[in-house]
Amino acid sequence: MTETARPERTRDAARTKQRLLDAARDEFAEYGIAGARVERIAGAARCNKALIYAYFDSKDGLFDAAFAAHVQAHLDRVNFDGTDLPGYAGRLFDIVEDDPAVIRLASWYRLERSNGPGLDAVISANEARLANLRQAQSEGKLTDRWDATAILVFVVSIANAWATLNPEFSATSAPDRAKRRLAVIDAVTSLIASH
Amino acid sequence: MTETARPERTRDAARTKQRLLDAARDEFAEYGIAGARVERIAGAARCNKALIYAYFDSKDGLFDAAFAAHVQAHLDRVNFDGTDLPGYAGRLFDIVEDDPAVIRLASWYRLERSNGPGLDAVISANEARLANLRQAQSEGKLTDRWDATAILVFVVSIANAWATLNPEFSATSAPDRAKRRLAVIDAVTSLIASH
Repeated sequence: MTETARPERTRDAARTKQRLLDAARDEFAEYGIAGARVERIAGAARCNKALIYAYFDSKDGLFDAAFAAHVQAHLDRVNFDGTDLPGYAGRLFDIVEDDPAVIRLASWYRLERSNGPGLDAVISANEARLANLRQAQSEGKLTDRWDATAILVFVVSIANAWATLNPEFSATSAPDRAKRRLAVIDAVTSLIASH
Repeated sequence: MTETARPERTRDAARTKQRLLDAARDEFAEYGIAGARVERIAGAARCNKALIYAYFDSKDGLFDAAFAAHVQAHLDRVNFDGTDLPGYAGRLFDIVEDDPAVIRLASWYRLERSNGPGLDAVISANEARLANLRQAQSEGKLTDRWDATAILVFVVSIANAWATLNPEFSATSAPDRAKRRLAVIDAVTSLIASH
């Protein structure tokens, strides 16, 4: 019995960890790192608070793990392509519209971790995208008017622009998602147009 | 004596309020609304905590007053001009580089007040900038390829792009302020170029 129980226990632990990461993502997106409560995360994941410390060491360790998993899932979904940045911007726009937690997590991270050592998941995500852009530039498929970093920074900012507005903008203009999406694609197209 | 003491007392109150607003700006920029401590604000302003409640009702009321004052001061400094958006973007870039609190306050506000009723200072700041852009469009001094809202949203996003990066970007590229500033002006120029 003990022989066969081991893989089952491993599967249980993996499932519990995943539930904790999912609950942590929601809690951190809502309240940030300082404002998040491990009790609420444990409750939402239906497990004992002590398991958070056993698996992730601390609330900060849990944030790092949840944010790294989020960055990886995001990269897999958005399919970065330096030879078609308007298309990438449209997909990024959709992801951010569909899931407000994406911008919220990144914003808390920037506010509460601005002086941290940096997460490997974020550093390698940056490097992968920059390498992709430099490759597109070297093949003549992307303007080299700016360096890869500037291009990435502007394209991401334009794609996220509507989601990073002050909330009062909805008082002055009703959101029209299709029109906003087209404007994003059009803005990126003119940004990278050859001159 | 009581006759002449009154204006002096009014001046003292105005000075105390200003000290509280300045201290509140620093505290909220660092810790956000939920994370700010009125004790620290009172201490930094060298006054009794009870005065915060007397003047501003609550920590939220103090945030509203400090943020509204910040928005007004920002508008006065940046000198919004719809007929010269690259110039505006360069000035906004400088303000944001010189004072990280600008982006931090706006980010906390968006995260912690996304469902609030909206601040009059923010609504009228939006409306003033949109009216300025529409005027420039009607005089033929600004492209009407996009509506005023889209133009404002993209220009602000591009000007703030470097300040809203994930912190790990400094690991992949050393910041060169003059180069970043030129890239911002250049990006806004190509965005609003006629086609």
